[in-house]
Parts: sequence; C-alpha cells; structure tokens
Amino acid sequence: MSNTLYCIKYLILFLLLSLQSKGQNVELFNHISNEVITIPSKVLNEERQIYIHVPKRESASPNKTFPVLYLLDGENHFHILSAYIDYLSYYEIIPPIIVVGIISKDRRKDLTPTKSTIDYFGKIDSTYKTSGGNEHFFQFMQSELIPYIETNYKAGSYKIFAGHSFGGITTINCMFTHPDMFNAYIAISPSLWWDNKYILKLAENKLTKSAYLDKIIFYSTGNEGINEQNSFHTDVLKFDSLIVNRTPKGLLYKYKCYPEESHMSEPIVAYYDALRFIYQDWKPPLKK
Amino acid sequence: MSNTLYCIKYLILFLLLSLQSKGQNVELFNHISNEVITIPSKVLNEERQIYIHVPKRESASPNKTFPVLYLLDGENHFHILSAYIDYLSYYEIIPPIIVVGIISKDRRKDLTPTKSTIDYFGKIDSTYKTSGGNEHFFQFMQSELIPYIETNYKAGSYKIFAGHSFGGITTINCMFTHPDMFNAYIAISPSLWWDNKYILKLAENKLTKSAYLDKIIFYSTGNEGINEQNSFHTDVLKFDSLIVNRTPKGLLYKYKCYPEESHMSEPIVAYYDALRFIYQDWKPPLKK
Repeated sequence: MSNTLYCIKYLILFLLLSLQSKGQNVELFNHISNEVITIPSKVLNEERQIYIHVPKRESASPNKTFPVLYLLDGENHFHILSAYIDYLSYYEIIPPIIVVGIISKDRRKDLTPTKSTIDYFGKIDSTYKTSGGNEHFFQFMQSELIPYIETNYKAGSYKIFAGHSFGGITTINCMFTHPDMFNAYIAISPSLWWDNKYILKLAENKLTKSAYLDKIIFYSTGNEGINEQNSFHTDVLKFDSLIVNRTPKGLLYKYKCYPEESHMSEPIVAYYDALRFIYQDWKPPLKK
Repeated sequence: MSNTLYCIKYLILFLLLSLQSKGQNVELFNHISNEVITIPSKVLNEERQIYIHVPKRESASPNKTFPVLYLLDGENHFHILSAYIDYLSYYEIIPPIIVVGIISKDRRKDLTPTKSTIDYFGKIDSTYKTSGGNEHFFQFMQSELIPYIETNYKAGSYKIFAGHSFGGITTINCMFTHPDMFNAYIAISPSLWWDNKYILKLAENKLTKSAYLDKIIFYSTGNEGINEQNSFHTDVLKFDSLIVNRTPKGLLYKYKCYPEESHMSEPIVAYYDALRFIYQDWKPPLKK
C-alpha cells in the first residue's frame, strides 16, 4: 500500500469466513471484504469517504487485475452492488469487479452539470445554489480518485461509471464531455429535466452518426412521470430516440423501463440488469 | 442476551457508520449489522452456524418487534437479502425484517423430504445417501432455532420461510406438513423432480378446495428445463395448476417465470419480487 501521504486508510473491515459443506451443485460462498477509506481531496478542498469492495478470492493471483465500477451515491447502493458482484462472479456469470462507492457530501453540487436553482416542479429552490459541480467532480475523479485506486488496488483498465437520478445525468455528461475516462456507463432514471433539459440538448449535439463511441451504456426509468404531469419519462424516451436514430458507431446501448418500480426501488432491479447487459458476452477464463 | 447456556455467540460483526450529507431527497443510509452465532443443536447432534441481520435503526424503540425471515442456504443468499431488506425498509417500501440465514452443512440431508439416491438425471447417486432429513431439520427449527431467535431478538410472530432449489421443496413441504410454523413461504425453483415428484404428489393430496391455508406463497422458475429433455419447468407448472385450480381458501399465491435467468442467477431477481409480493399491501406506520 503506497501513496499513503495523500490518502488515509483509516478503517478496514474485513470478513473472510471459510466454511465447509456438502452441497448440491452449490459450494459455499462467504467472502465479503469491504474497505472504507478517506481521501483528502485537494481538488474539492474537502475529505471524501469511499467504500471499496475488493474481490478477495481471486486476489491471490499476483498478476490478475479487475475491472472497476465507480459508483455514485455509494451510501445508498454500495451494499447491493457489492453483493451482486460477489455472488455473480462466484458463479462466473460476470467477472470479479472492484466497486468504488463514492459517498455523497453535497450531491446537488457534485452531480449536476450546470448551475440552476429551478427544481423538478419548475419552482425556484435556493437549496440548489451550489449546483453545477460536475466538471469539478470529474477532475477529482480523474486526478485523485482513479489514480489512487489504480495505485493501491489490482485495478485493470476497464472502468464503469454508474449513477442514479442526478448520478444518471452525471454519468451521461461524463460520457459526452470526457469520453476517455470510462468504458461503460449506467444511468438509472437520469434527471434529464435538470436545467431546461441541458443533457438532452448536449446529447442532440454530441450524438451524431459519425461520432465514434466505443462504449456501452445502460439507461432506465421507473414509474416516474408515467401518470404525472411532468416529462421525467418522456425525456428519457427522447434520449433513447436520439441513441436509436443516430446509432453512433461502436455504441452498444440498452434502455429498460420498469413501470412497477418507483424512483427509489428501481436501482435494485436496474443495477442487476445493467451488470448483466455490460457482461452479456463475457466468458470465464478457461481453467488450466 | 439470555439463553447463552445452549447457544454460543462467538462472533459479532457490527458496522454502524453514521455519515452526514446534503442529498437530493436521499438521506444517508449506512446501517449494516450482521451477527454470526453458532447453535450446538441437540436435535441435529451438531453445531450449526447462523447469520442474523438485525434492523438496527428501529431497534431503539423498546417494544417494537419485527417479522423474521428464515433463509435456507444462508451462505449463498444472506448478503443479498439483507441488503434488499435494509434498503427497502429504509425507503419504507417493506417493513424492517430480521433475517436468519441458516448455513448449510449437508443440504442434501436437511433439505430433502424423503430418502432417495436417484439424481436429477434419473441415475443412482450414492452421495444422496444421507437424504430425507426435512422432518429432523424442522424439529431443529421448531424446538431450537426459532425459540432462540424469539428469546434473543425482537422477533414478532410473523415468520417467512425462504429457500431455493432443494430449499424450495423444503419450504413447500413445511407448509403442508407443519402449517403452523410459518406465515409466508418462498420457493425459488423448487426441485420438484425429487424422489419421483414426491412433493407434487403431496400437493395433490393437501391442496383441496376445502383446505384452509391462511398463507402467502411465492414460487418461481428460471430457465431450467425450458429447452431441455427434463421436467424441471413443467413440474413447477403442474404445481402452479394445482394451486390455481384448487385455490385453497385464504392462500395468496404468485408464480413467476424468469426465462432469462439460470438456476443460480434467478434467486437475485426472485427474492426481490418475493419480498415485494409478500408486502404488497404493507403501509408504513403513521408518524406521530
């Protein structure tokens, strides 16, 4: 573990239970290893707490590296995503993945592309006065968080950026404005309503048929706006139309609607489907 | 904590992280509290390891009790179910629930209703020679495990029994043979092929129109047997037909098929749907 001068690892939670059993096609499965670190960010001028899920089982192989999933709103979805990845990789349905859960401090600041004080209902809301921090946040990730992870963990080059709601517009914004940072994107119920549909307009400009995007994107909606007088749902349908009609070369995409899920229950099912979609063609390495 | 004479609590893993943030409709959510206990069972004449997920947030209320979900194959599905319950109860989509994950020792023994050495493919398999332990296992639960949980945790009277594969036939068998033990049952891809379709025949006898079953049951299948020369899928369809055609008074049921999920990936989606089904009419208590 190097790089300790600018990063403080203050708490390691490590549970490794080895049990034995005789199972019907089911071996035992009990490796959970999550770490919590704090990064004193110079870019953001504040300390940021990060949860990290490390694939322990496979870490014994000295040269093995893993894809990394950078997860926004880590405080909400880290445990579910870590449990999915631990379980699915054990059964070789997806590869083992490092999960980096970024804990929110001011998500209206970090997870919005522009400054605006207009809320979801079109009303002025002064609590949005810190908004517009996406670019600043991307700089934190690019110059501090990602280098830290790549220095201190067995991180491979493949990176996934995952978010929900404001986190969803943040991952889409990053795909368009910093296309070199990540390989795959998950945008669950992206808040495309933000700032007079700023991200939809950005997509209109960026998604040209000639654009080359060697990327994967999964986006979804729940029941938001389906029976309401607002455009949450139709905005995502418009985004989907842009993707479908302009099909940028090299962009693999999937849109899924979950009409039975609310804005807050949808991430449970959508994150699962997103992982399965991104790794639909993945095959486990041949055993030697 | 009483009752320590016959139960040894040897390891407590407790993580309670309190963080602060300014979120957009999302408060922070960081309570994970899982315990691991070992019960030296007289009935089974062996020690049994149990994982327990306790709703910590709400435990401050002195008189509050929680439903309890008894989970078979705890080594496989405990983390996912605990994460679901922690998340969904935080957003008041379902109530907080205590999860009791029973770690397998010999699941072919504990989780089969009868003795048989015929495997899934109709061949003799001597590794099934310990099979047929359901009744013995139910006695362990009834006389040792459930009393322990009810003595040492804030367990209410509502109990759910959940299992997958052999665990699925075990929960169905328990519903028919010990109907007073549980209120709700989850049977994910139950191995109805077992012992010449023993559980299907039992259902045929027990599911009469006049039978009163004040119960809830969720059962499901993945892609098993859909394109294969075996009856895994059609057996569950037959079970469903028995339920639908005889509709016992007071039995609330739901069958769901997941053709895109394998035997081992299906529990992830099916356990979520099962929780949502069992608590579809649940409403959070009114705030005082």
